[in-house]
Amino acid sequence: MNYPLTLMHILERAGMLYGSVEIVSRMPDKSLHRYTYADFYRRARSLAKALQKAGLKRGDRVGTLMWNHYVHLESYFGIPAAGGVIHTLNLRLHPDEIAYIANHAGDRFLIVDDVLLPLLQKFRDQLRVEKIIVVSLTGQPVPEGMEEYESFIAEPAEDFVYPELEEEDAAGMCYTSGTTGRPKGVVYSHRALVLHSFATALGDVLGISRRDVVVPVVPMFHVNAWGLPFTCTMVGTKQVFPGPHLDPASLLDLFEKERVTITAGVPTIWLGILQMLEKNPGKWDLVPGMRMMVGGSAAPESMIRAFDRHNLRVVHGWGMTETTPVGTLGILKPHMEEWPEEKQYEYRAKQGLPLPFVEVRIATEDGFAPHDGKTMGELQVRGPWIAADYYNRPDSRDSFTEDGWFRTGDVATIDPEGFVKITDRTKDLIKSGGEWISSVDLENALMGHPAVAEAAVIAVPHPKWQERPLAVVVLKEGAQATEEELIQFLAPKFAKWWLPDGVVFVEEIPRTSAGKFLKAKLREQFKDWVKEGEGLRTE
Amino acid sequence: MNYPLTLMHILERAGMLYGSVEIVSRMPDKSLHRYTYADFYRRARSLAKALQKAGLKRGDRVGTLMWNHYVHLESYFGIPAAGGVIHTLNLRLHPDEIAYIANHAGDRFLIVDDVLLPLLQKFRDQLRVEKIIVVSLTGQPVPEGMEEYESFIAEPAEDFVYPELEEEDAAGMCYTSGTTGRPKGVVYSHRALVLHSFATALGDVLGISRRDVVVPVVPMFHVNAWGLPFTCTMVGTKQVFPGPHLDPASLLDLFEKERVTITAGVPTIWLGILQMLEKNPGKWDLVPGMRMMVGGSAAPESMIRAFDRHNLRVVHGWGMTETTPVGTLGILKPHMEEWPEEKQYEYRAKQGLPLPFVEVRIATEDGFAPHDGKTMGELQVRGPWIAADYYNRPDSRDSFTEDGWFRTGDVATIDPEGFVKITDRTKDLIKSGGEWISSVDLENALMGHPAVAEAAVIAVPHPKWQERPLAVVVLKEGAQATEEELIQFLAPKFAKWWLPDGVVFVEEIPRTSAGKFLKAKLREQFKDWVKEGEGLRTE
Ligand SMILES: Nc1ncnc2c1ncn2[C@@H]1O[C@H](COP(=O)(O)OP(=O)(O)OP(=O)(O)O)[C@@H](O)[C@H]1O
Ligand SMILES: Nc1ncnc2c1ncn2[C@@H]1O[C@H](COP(=O)(O)OP(=O)(O)OP(=O)(O)O)[C@@H](O)[C@H]1O
Ligand SMILES: [Mg+2]
Ligand SMILES: [Mg+2]
Repeated sequence: MNYPLTLMHILERAGMLYGSVEIVSRMPDKSLHRYTYADFYRRARSLAKALQKAGLKRGDRVGTLMWNHYVHLESYFGIPAAGGVIHTLNLRLHPDEIAYIANHAGDRFLIVDDVLLPLLQKFRDQLRVEKIIVVSLTGQPVPEGMEEYESFIAEPAEDFVYPELEEEDAAGMCYTSGTTGRPKGVVYSHRALVLHSFATALGDVLGISRRDVVVPVVPMFHVNAWGLPFTCTMVGTKQVFPGPHLDPASLLDLFEKERVTITAGVPTIWLGILQMLEKNPGKWDLVPGMRMMVGGSAAPESMIRAFDRHNLRVVHGWGMTETTPVGTLGILKPHMEEWPEEKQYEYRAKQGLPLPFVEVRIATEDGFAPHDGKTMGELQVRGPWIAADYYNRPDSRDSFTEDGWFRTGDVATIDPEGFVKITDRTKDLIKSGGEWISSVDLENALMGHPAVAEAAVIAVPHPKWQERPLAVVVLKEGAQATEEELIQFLAPKFAKWWLPDGVVFVEEIPRTSAGKFLKAKLREQFKDWVKEGEGLRTE
Repeated sequence: MNYPLTLMHILERAGMLYGSVEIVSRMPDKSLHRYTYADFYRRARSLAKALQKAGLKRGDRVGTLMWNHYVHLESYFGIPAAGGVIHTLNLRLHPDEIAYIANHAGDRFLIVDDVLLPLLQKFRDQLRVEKIIVVSLTGQPVPEGMEEYESFIAEPAEDFVYPELEEEDAAGMCYTSGTTGRPKGVVYSHRALVLHSFATALGDVLGISRRDVVVPVVPMFHVNAWGLPFTCTMVGTKQVFPGPHLDPASLLDLFEKERVTITAGVPTIWLGILQMLEKNPGKWDLVPGMRMMVGGSAAPESMIRAFDRHNLRVVHGWGMTETTPVGTLGILKPHMEEWPEEKQYEYRAKQGLPLPFVEVRIATEDGFAPHDGKTMGELQVRGPWIAADYYNRPDSRDSFTEDGWFRTGDVATIDPEGFVKITDRTKDLIKSGGEWISSVDLENALMGHPAVAEAAVIAVPHPKWQERPLAVVVLKEGAQATEEELIQFLAPKFAKWWLPDGVVFVEEIPRTSAGKFLKAKLREQFKDWVKEGEGLRTE
């Protein structure tokens, strides 16, 4: 039967079957807003109706500038249900950049949290949107010339009829994080979002069922909070949103109070939570075995081990804005559970197996790499939820191969078990004497040292070897370590020529809005760095 | 990205990621054949290559006449991988019927178990296939004019290239069970099978992951063994096939030996297993909480309760050949687990919630029924794995509504939780004085009586009420019960006018090849039945 895969089915299903399931949101004043899927369903449809009435046409973009909460969830479904495209704007970017992105996407309307109005003010002038709808989270009056969300959606929508959409129609849109250059826009079809929901819900992926309670810590403006709002709504899971309160204590309180079983976010969030847990033993009574999906940057093995000691389980995954985003996930195969602990951790620190219907390969200069766990090359992927192009960026054709694969810009290996391991970004690679050195491997090893809080390893120019690795390290509060000590710590784990030429200690490593190391900035900063007594080790 | 949902992806993925996972098959001599996904992958591709070489064209049908075992699994993937359509023939049908079905489908080739050659002999003459390939399970010589499977697939297929298929291309085909008339053919697209695999693997449906060990007891000629071979291969689950040995003791041995976690079959299978377990307490050491998916006919509540006492969990689902087959599944919602036990069992005996992307509605004479758990009407469904027509049966257009829903021919209710309950088939309904009586409800209640092995309730003609219910009962070996006693047993559970006018005791209830009651036959047999002292209760 010809039946399109659209988000409307998920919305209708949720309204019909899961009416009594709760959706909880932390408000700016830290109180908890609670309502049910029945409310969400009614209001998402009212939003759709209001948008249509306001003139939204099939394919039109609606920007959102919001934290994670129930109105953002309503927008996730209400905008596509009107035939529109939800375009989530990253509130952590520079105001000029947000304006550039909203204009580049051609957003017609914007829905914004009242607590973000001061941010909006900074680029309001540059913005070419027709209508601004303000979500009044704090009760302050809505500025002149803007509409208030509650009155915008006030009309009941029992009579609302969905537009006839096809599964290839656009439903969502997001720009990349801008780690390596200017953010690029990716458009998600209904089909891609639905298939991604099915795949990520699987038991060997995130394993999300209606028995779970899920907190997306990852922002809803960051690749759809990794698709969790779609997946959870499809299966009828209780959803808990942290609002603007992303500090470790607020999150831990929320996990405890709402009996959370699954959460997701970038490593920096978890490092903060880990420190808080270690400082306050026994303070929070979390659901034993709570799963924490970690992605966006590599999850250091030391972090996975540390959380295991708290009976919290890190699940490591890899993805990109261009892959909707989940591409691989690192849950062990059953037979691996009989392996020695060391080897299990080694595998759990990899980025894992491709999801069903995602294909992966490693391109090298001499063709495609064997699955030997050693040969590095560019990771290329294809599948039904992988982007085929960027929005209005004709210059980006070389991100795709002639035979239709997406070039991720990540460097990886694949081992005989099929586990993908990201060793670098092509732009961050260190090429020493013609051979590649994985900065990520060195960083993860360094972060295993008890005194090290964070470490980034970058290439510095070298007259003989072209490039050599330099470690940039932030020590833990009150901790001490010397360059020599850290190099000695690495020595047993790596070939001699991989060892950094030096270690510099800094207060802070520059980061992107998504908490990723801005290595381009570090490389700029240390481009003139020269080793004392140069040449001794590297000869 | 335009990436079709085809079975080839599943096959390639299995070969690449799950090479070491086992596939176990019980052979006719009761020995266990073991090999791995790596072997399966290689051989399925060799089969595809051999079929292409033998002249198979895109869309051509290949019949299979086989028990559940590894070669059948190879055919599930090898035939579609050649662009062909696997057409599973029901070996339990009358030989004339098998021949009719194979010819109606236009099967070009046939793959058959050597142990089924005596059956094939009975209709060989009527069959219009070009080539017969014999799977030598016992080692006996292959008859003249037929090919042997192992030599047919002997050529390695490293160089085999899949045909370019689209997801709408046909991959499989199956005929209905013939409970209510002549079997009708249903064609499955690659897309339907893939989406069905995703949906049934979900945690709230069958919850199949690579940690499971799955035995499809339901035959692979019966709606693709409910899709399990596709689902398991997609997620990399160990598969165990019972071959021709479907007696309770053989199955229990297999469950114990292979540490089975999930199995599936029709209620008759489980009733046999239950009796065996009760007769031999402690004999089998099964995985605690092993899930048994039951469908095809209603799972009586008494059976669900009985298995709970053995720490085995019945999961009740509804489906049809036309729905690929899983349409609904009866796993409780989390909040129901706080309900009183009685009510939980009542719900677990329902057929459950529609799967994601399956829509259900109840059509009555006055429009669509409310979700009140009371209003009965015809169950209509639609979704991406629901058939849009029957193969070459232009006369069956009225199985579909004008607005594109499939009319199931089942009578059902939907309650406020969204749980579907099948109360009858339209053809088995009892209409007494203008009101409907559910034969299934009466049957299930009767099967809760300790002396009753099986019960079918049918309509008998009545001068005043048009139709009245008659119970046809098989008592358990050595057990005794009177008509009066059984009616008294039902009395507190039903309205007075629902109570059967009589109970007749028989040795056996006639069944279809799939173990379903052949009520048409019973109605014929009892069409002249008259109640002694007629008229007393029903006035
Ligand atoms: N588990 C992981 N381990 C290592 N790196 C990861 C992991 N998950 C994601 N990444 C990195 O994040 C990238 C995807 O991030 P995202 O789409 O948010 O934008 P970005 O690549 O950081 O920014 P831009 O593409 O604009 O430079 C991947 O290409 C990869 O480099
Ligand atoms: N869990 C269940 N409870 C009650 N009935 C069920 C259940 N599962 C399946 N059925 C019945 O089985 C039917 C589907 O069976 P199948 O497709 O094997 O062929 P059939 O309907 O028995 O035969 P035919 O369509 O040729 O008459 C459903 O329409 C329904 O009547
Ligand atoms: Mg990127
Ligand atoms: Mg039928």
